[in-house]
Amino acid sequence: MKVTVLQNIMNANDKIAAKNQDILNQNKVFSINVMSSPGAGKTSLILETIKQLKDKCKICVIEADIASTMDADKIIKEGVPAVQINTGGECHTDANMFSAALDKLPLKEIDLLFLENVGNLVCPAEFRVGTRKGIMLLSVPEGDDKPYKYPLMFSTVDAVVISKMDYLSLSNFNLEQFEKTVKGMNPDVKIFRVSVKTGEGVPDWTGWLETQLKEI
Amino acid sequence: MKVTVLQNIMNANDKIAAKNQDILNQNKVFSINVMSSPGAGKTSLILETIKQLKDKCKICVIEADIASTMDADKIIKEGVPAVQINTGGECHTDANMFSAALDKLPLKEIDLLFLENVGNLVCPAEFRVGTRKGIMLLSVPEGDDKPYKYPLMFSTVDAVVISKMDYLSLSNFNLEQFEKTVKGMNPDVKIFRVSVKTGEGVPDWTGWLETQLKEI
Repeated sequence: MKVTVLQNIMNANDKIAAKNQDILNQNKVFSINVMSSPGAGKTSLILETIKQLKDKCKICVIEADIASTMDADKIIKEGVPAVQINTGGECHTDANMFSAALDKLPLKEIDLLFLENVGNLVCPAEFRVGTRKGIMLLSVPEGDDKPYKYPLMFSTVDAVVISKMDYLSLSNFNLEQFEKTVKGMNPDVKIFRVSVKTGEGVPDWTGWLETQLKEI
Repeated sequence: MKVTVLQNIMNANDKIAAKNQDILNQNKVFSINVMSSPGAGKTSLILETIKQLKDKCKICVIEADIASTMDADKIIKEGVPAVQINTGGECHTDANMFSAALDKLPLKEIDLLFLENVGNLVCPAEFRVGTRKGIMLLSVPEGDDKPYKYPLMFSTVDAVVISKMDYLSLSNFNLEQFEKTVKGMNPDVKIFRVSVKTGEGVPDWTGWLETQLKEI
């Protein structure tokens, strides 16, 4: 009974996700679902990306949180439009919530759209929303053993950003081993080593985004 | 429809949780549900607690993970029995999984039982399992804004352990502001500032546990 209900929910979700993807493609919007644990630095990465790219393309952000509008407020301060989704307790964004947020945006004018998902390494990986790419951040302080514990997330994203590289000196995070593990689970994944604080790796990340934007 | 099904699941869960609590009380086991984001240091805190208290009381750990037995293996290495729950994709431990794990334990011999929940600040807060106390860790690198974003977790736990205090010098985490916010949401909460790496705050934490153990 529980399984059947869940399957129905997932099928309905995937249909709406496919429709969202069509709408984004028709409007030539390059969209990214940004996922991570709480506090891995999603908002900081998006804010830094805005700083680097806002003169080159039109950016917009959909912020999903269980509660609060703190992150959306930070984005708006940078002069970029942001739509807040409050999931009302839900631990992820589903395709329906994303669709409702898309309805509020002038999609024809947007080049690059970020969805900042709820901080959670589990459920967001299960719910497609219809973005072109899905990426995750794994911050250095979280430790290099996370791929074994959250395999669905690591094996399905298009890119992994190792964030908070500036904490590396205090940590026993093994970068080579971590990257080898992730590539073993997800051979085509792109991996970036980034510190928004020091600027390390930011050009690699924004360079990748610019390439993606040209291809759409 | 979806809401009704969810409500039925939650009611059934709470009934099993109450039964688990009875069983633990009858056996005079002091039990703690340990929750946090991925990588906040749950296993490290439990391992350090084992080191400090294993000569004073009989400890046992139930490890819940979506996949892998890495954490259970670390516990067993310390000479403490551990039972692994693999949630099979589920983002939290429910009362039924906890009950099945309890069945495997010699409860009469145990004084202190940890449940290390799945790394997630959302769903574990919604599912009572039947432990006497629920605590959470919030690691310094995650940032001090998390109570606003994950209010259910912060407002329902009995204690908050601020972990990875050794990262404080690299961070802009405002301890006073954070503690004030948490106390505002949850006036009776106990807050500890801990670094397992340097030993800071560990005696406060184990001292609190020892007091709890005496009261059971």
